[in-house]
Amino acid sequence: MAYQLPSALLSHAVEEMSKLPGIGSKTALRLVLHMLRQDEVQITTLADALVKLRKEVKYCKVCHNISDTDICGICADPKRDQSILCVVENIQDVMAIENTQQFRGLYHVLGGVISPIDGVSPSDLNIASLIERVDGGDVKEVILALSPTMEGDATNYFIFRKLADKGITISVISRGIAQNDELQYTDEVTLGRSIVNRTPFKS
Amino acid sequence: MAYQLPSALLSHAVEEMSKLPGIGSKTALRLVLHMLRQDEVQITTLADALVKLRKEVKYCKVCHNISDTDICGICADPKRDQSILCVVENIQDVMAIENTQQFRGLYHVLGGVISPIDGVSPSDLNIASLIERVDGGDVKEVILALSPTMEGDATNYFIFRKLADKGITISVISRGIAQNDELQYTDEVTLGRSIVNRTPFKS
Repeated sequence: MAYQLPSALLSHAVEEMSKLPGIGSKTALRLVLHMLRQDEVQITTLADALVKLRKEVKYCKVCHNISDTDICGICADPKRDQSILCVVENIQDVMAIENTQQFRGLYHVLGGVISPIDGVSPSDLNIASLIERVDGGDVKEVILALSPTMEGDATNYFIFRKLADKGITISVISRGIAQNDELQYTDEVTLGRSIVNRTPFKS
Repeated sequence: MAYQLPSALLSHAVEEMSKLPGIGSKTALRLVLHMLRQDEVQITTLADALVKLRKEVKYCKVCHNISDTDICGICADPKRDQSILCVVENIQDVMAIENTQQFRGLYHVLGGVISPIDGVSPSDLNIASLIERVDGGDVKEVILALSPTMEGDATNYFIFRKLADKGITISVISRGIAQNDELQYTDEVTLGRSIVNRTPFKS
């Protein structure tokens, strides 16, 4: 960094903060100097919350979502449809889908997508436990809800092949132009696919 | 926040992170989830660095810059010109000016600017100690290097009045159009002032 920090304590704190993704050294400095103006208790509360979370975090034994209990709130909810599993990459995706209020089944959090370039192979993901859940017999449909990227598609295909002979429905979330997108600025692949996969008009 | 977080530990950590300036709840969540993927030691190192800085931070007794020692490196440097003081708002400004390598005098960090709307009055700033330094007798010039805002100008004027009868030179950093700025997009005040305060052309 170009800045010459006047204190080793300060530069250590800035260095550690700037290890976070999307936090450059200037932002880290701004955040750390802000903390210096706060009450000490506020900084220790933040520090404790982070350390405690990292030490005590649990993942649901069924769907691998973050949870304070062995089984997460969604998996333990008897009102949810146990026969549909929605496969997602990470817990943000669970929250995004929950926010739509359009899905009442259960989730399965893979913890990533297959990406040889990042060194992520199928064995690094929660795929074995997905197959176990399907083998359990309650599941009738698996919805693949991964991002429409090369890695997401490769992961979809890998899971599809593992589940193809299990006698369940395997579906993929629909792709097409997004709400409020302008047609002329939509990429060719998306636009072409949205025509091929057109659906009956409902008024 | 719109997100329903699946864990109280997680939501507490996210809540504390999002108290930082410029960190919304989505960014806080992204940062916290990133930390979950790191080694525990990395999180405790970050947490310790922040708490230790907040607990042990010192400010230079002369110029109020952050320092690990009672007197900061700049004030203690015998090669620097003790007769010129540059008055700045905060330590980022010290670093910005140091980076220019155009100033070899000493600094005086006010710790803010006068801003009635934010409840910052002259007594909240390091102005008394500035007057003491000038009264010490070594200072021949004070350069006011505050931001060219209403608050900065008010603070400049306040300090000017306090120092006007001390028999020293009081100067203000020059204002005008910035390097690489386009004339047609420069605001009227700046452009007008740059004409009034024109300087002899040096080839």
